[in-house]
Amino acid sequence: MLRALRLILDPREIVGIVNVGDDLTLHGLRICPDLDTITYTLAGLDNTETGWGRLGETWRAMAELELLGGEAWFSLGDLDLATHLYRTQRLSEGASLSTVTQELLDRRGVDVMLLPATDDPIATEFTTTSGQRLSFQEYFVKHHHDVEIASIEFAGAAQATPAPHVLDLLETAERIIISPSNPLISIQPILAIPGIAEVLRARRDRVVAVSPLIGGRALKGPADRLLVELAGEASNVAVAVAYDGLLGTLVIDAGDSAEVRSVEATGIRCIATPTLMSDESASRSLAKAMLDA
Amino acid sequence: MLRALRLILDPREIVGIVNVGDDLTLHGLRICPDLDTITYTLAGLDNTETGWGRLGETWRAMAELELLGGEAWFSLGDLDLATHLYRTQRLSEGASLSTVTQELLDRRGVDVMLLPATDDPIATEFTTTSGQRLSFQEYFVKHHHDVEIASIEFAGAAQATPAPHVLDLLETAERIIISPSNPLISIQPILAIPGIAEVLRARRDRVVAVSPLIGGRALKGPADRLLVELAGEASNVAVAVAYDGLLGTLVIDAGDSAEVRSVEATGIRCIATPTLMSDESASRSLAKAMLDA
Repeated sequence: MLRALRLILDPREIVGIVNVGDDLTLHGLRICPDLDTITYTLAGLDNTETGWGRLGETWRAMAELELLGGEAWFSLGDLDLATHLYRTQRLSEGASLSTVTQELLDRRGVDVMLLPATDDPIATEFTTTSGQRLSFQEYFVKHHHDVEIASIEFAGAAQATPAPHVLDLLETAERIIISPSNPLISIQPILAIPGIAEVLRARRDRVVAVSPLIGGRALKGPADRLLVELAGEASNVAVAVAYDGLLGTLVIDAGDSAEVRSVEATGIRCIATPTLMSDESASRSLAKAMLDA
Repeated sequence: MLRALRLILDPREIVGIVNVGDDLTLHGLRICPDLDTITYTLAGLDNTETGWGRLGETWRAMAELELLGGEAWFSLGDLDLATHLYRTQRLSEGASLSTVTQELLDRRGVDVMLLPATDDPIATEFTTTSGQRLSFQEYFVKHHHDVEIASIEFAGAAQATPAPHVLDLLETAERIIISPSNPLISIQPILAIPGIAEVLRARRDRVVAVSPLIGGRALKGPADRLLVELAGEASNVAVAVAYDGLLGTLVIDAGDSAEVRSVEATGIRCIATPTLMSDESASRSLAKAMLDA
């Protein structure tokens, strides 16, 4: 979505506020999967085949770690490792996550600003229907999100403070756009930080979200399954309800236009338009539709 | 020296007690250069061209880190990184350095036991003649040991406890062999741990050291220069004096036999024999001379 918006806006007008609930410390390294994936994508360094990680990546360190019997289920490529080494060193020197994020963007030549939602640690945690507790990456990577979830918790969120500028930017932004991301595990950890949902609620006529569902299914990830497990159904109404009074408008896919009326019955506007960003032209059209909404 | 001793002894009879004063935490990773170099060497995985690091190493992560402006002066190869990732993860889970060391030896199929001198952190630190404080790796790698040193300190050593089995092994060992290492910065950090020098002193007739000097010069590293700076001269007498009453015998190179008398004047035995382990046969001869001494 950021890449699409950059096609039609001055990059310096765009700020991405990014989820840190997926972050983890592994092998002593601080890893921020969402910040990294977005940075790599905006820098044109993303691996479009796998959908995560680096273009032209190699796995020498991981193959060796596996040989040593180490925890190799969370794959860190040799190039990707450099990002985590850099971040961990800078954090250990006392730099904030926001500062390190900006340094990495500058070094990568990315002209869109990204802010972690908070500089404080937040951990998205899952409880399965059989009572097992899972960290985000255990759920997502180790179990390939193939377990039934009973509840989700954002550990640390209630004690967290929005990162510098996050509230100011949300209070003064011309538009607040919520990407076609998983509302329950990618956007909720941001909204759970005290102060952020309040600003959105107060400015809801400026807030436009894109639904991650097309024909009741998520393009990738477990959004559809989790909506069924935790909200009863994988529908655009369930997405609208998950955003709980924070939206002015929900954009849904053109193919789901039959759902417009039921979404609007929840008290928000609903626009149906092609949401699949399959190429640059489609991306540009969606970005324009978001701004016009 | 361990590799040489393994040529003539049952590997299970050999235990290496290893310096940890060079250890450092960088990028959040716990790095133990001496333990790692010895483990790689005994496993036949050492890079004989560089004299450090891994055979067949690549540097993808470091090259990328340099591009990011990170601290890349201490080179960590992609394969070598796996060792540090493994160690750091296991230490964060509460395993001791001794335990992790043994796990790495087992995974590498090394049949000689290695023990860190202590499981506690020790840091060898330098003060230059211009008053600058340097960590071991700043001195050794960043400045290529090309600065004049006024004093050396082993931070944490006085509060450290020998690792499990270290004192028992020293008390019961048939022979205690000190490798042709730098007495001031590779052996002293071990001797500075309370209890260790005392055992050696009590058993000094079992203690044999090899001098690292051949013709007044160290084969590699700054032993000669440091002996001049801190002990007045790079001689075998200075080596004997550095071991301060802990040796029964000092083995020096055959070419330095003129120094035998002056070394013996310090109150210990001195044997001159070829000490350059240039090939397997020379290594075997030195190992035999050490055991016979």
